[in-house]
Amino acid sequence: MNANDTNTFGADARLIALDWGTSSLRAWLLGGGGAVLDTCAAPLGVQQVPEGDFAGVYARLTAAWRTAAPGLPALAAGMIGSAQGWREAPYQVCPADAGALGTGLIEVDTGCGGRLHIVPGLRVEAALPDVMRGEETQILGALAVEPALAANARLVLPGTHSKWVTVRDGRIERFATYMTGELFAVLRAHSILGRPAREAGATGDAAAFARGVATVRDAADGLFPLLFSARTLVLRGALDAAHSLDYLSGLLIGEELRCALAGAATPAPVLIGDPALCERYLRALALFGVTDARSLDNTAPAGLWRIAVAAGLVTDTPAAEPAQC
Amino acid sequence: MNANDTNTFGADARLIALDWGTSSLRAWLLGGGGAVLDTCAAPLGVQQVPEGDFAGVYARLTAAWRTAAPGLPALAAGMIGSAQGWREAPYQVCPADAGALGTGLIEVDTGCGGRLHIVPGLRVEAALPDVMRGEETQILGALAVEPALAANARLVLPGTHSKWVTVRDGRIERFATYMTGELFAVLRAHSILGRPAREAGATGDAAAFARGVATVRDAADGLFPLLFSARTLVLRGALDAAHSLDYLSGLLIGEELRCALAGAATPAPVLIGDPALCERYLRALALFGVTDARSLDNTAPAGLWRIAVAAGLVTDTPAAEPAQC
Repeated sequence: MNANDTNTFGADARLIALDWGTSSLRAWLLGGGGAVLDTCAAPLGVQQVPEGDFAGVYARLTAAWRTAAPGLPALAAGMIGSAQGWREAPYQVCPADAGALGTGLIEVDTGCGGRLHIVPGLRVEAALPDVMRGEETQILGALAVEPALAANARLVLPGTHSKWVTVRDGRIERFATYMTGELFAVLRAHSILGRPAREAGATGDAAAFARGVATVRDAADGLFPLLFSARTLVLRGALDAAHSLDYLSGLLIGEELRCALAGAATPAPVLIGDPALCERYLRALALFGVTDARSLDNTAPAGLWRIAVAAGLVTDTPAAEPAQC
Repeated sequence: MNANDTNTFGADARLIALDWGTSSLRAWLLGGGGAVLDTCAAPLGVQQVPEGDFAGVYARLTAAWRTAAPGLPALAAGMIGSAQGWREAPYQVCPADAGALGTGLIEVDTGCGGRLHIVPGLRVEAALPDVMRGEETQILGALAVEPALAANARLVLPGTHSKWVTVRDGRIERFATYMTGELFAVLRAHSILGRPAREAGATGDAAAFARGVATVRDAADGLFPLLFSARTLVLRGALDAAHSLDYLSGLLIGEELRCALAGAATPAPVLIGDPALCERYLRALALFGVTDARSLDNTAPAGLWRIAVAAGLVTDTPAAEPAQC
């Protein structure tokens, strides 16, 4: 965005929408019907904001939008609503729809005019509870983008903490978390399994990834007895050190699929998230015989719009028409 | 040891024996029949030796013994024989007994008079190979201490890389590695699962450990879908943050047992290693209904003696008797 743009979207602007996660912050200026008028991003996730100055980050990032269109409502989802964020938004309990999330919004004074509403995360109540913050908004966005998913869908959000989500009758019914991405990151950086690739210089290798997926798919007891093979295969000269991280990634994603697919053949998974990561999951799913999965790109702005409508922060009318007298 | 002791064991001394692992070094002066005459230890594992000066460490640690009993043979097992150690001792292939290990010894010039022999590790040849270095010596020590184990035993060496070992007809037939200890260490230090205990200050709690073991024991798909519960139970107030590491430890050790015990009811496991860690495994085994397991303390010196005998470095006679004319 530059200064010249401000007048082009000022009249249509309806909502400042933020996906404020652990490691990154993305923001959109949304117009009528949730149309994206402008966007910006910064590596200023909750963990990266110096001294917790969330108000300062918010003020700088949204300054031009607020100048062009004063008084806009603002809505944020993600870890900004956690205990480590700006202010904690208590979890809503599953099953939940947009309305339930809308009634759970909390507010903070931005310090630069107006208030920021924050979407609560979701909790599964069970002997082993589960939680999400931010993904609930992407899920509602997916249902807004593809209304046919609302009746019965299995949504998958791969990532640091992958989520497998069951949607039924328009509600997020339940979900399960797999720490696949975080496990890969800590093993790569801090374990003996990451060392060969750290020393050799890792290069991507689709065959090594597929080998890891197939190995865990065919194992009686899953990942745990196989983990050390990411080292012994390299020692034995049977796996290139530079490809060993892709083999490890295959083991971990394969284990996620082995567990998540157990006993649940339908409906076909719909993936939401980073296109490169979704493509990796699609390759792994194909090795499990799941060939009808597909992926959606970022659905967070659509979800923020939907929740803002449900909460009455905006009305879901199209862009303003010239006034009729 | 102090200077006054040197003359008390000089005449009986037969072997300088070392267990030189990744993080620690233990050494024994062994007499006739493998009797321990003296012992010392230092936090100078292969990764802790400055600039790879293994010769300097060896010279300092054994100086008094070599002075008191010049010309003793010396034998070391463990990671000192790896590519990161003093000199690499190529793996012997399973099945293997003390004789096979004895023929695979390599030698280094100690630089302080005499040579140090190094025990090779063991390798399982399979599509997914496996390796050990140091444990093979403890296993042979267990068979020396309890000869009845040689016919048919299941030995378990808990640790950073736990080993489950099948012994049959006096030979180490095969084994499998579980990265339980390393996984716990990296998750504790570097993942979101370690954070609550890092902030609250971890305290041991046997009930939390048992809860983790039982949770994974009763789970259809094992550990992977449960890992995040070490966080969500704390968030929910259903697990004390200070006890969350013991719960995580229970999940990990429980997963090791779930996999290793699958389809193998006999013989009863015999554990070898650190007594506190073995006791933890015994508690976990009992939760899996395995109540006839037991543990042995450090069997490394007995194993080093046995390999030295097999290699002809020493003769297996009792302590020297007064000379007969």
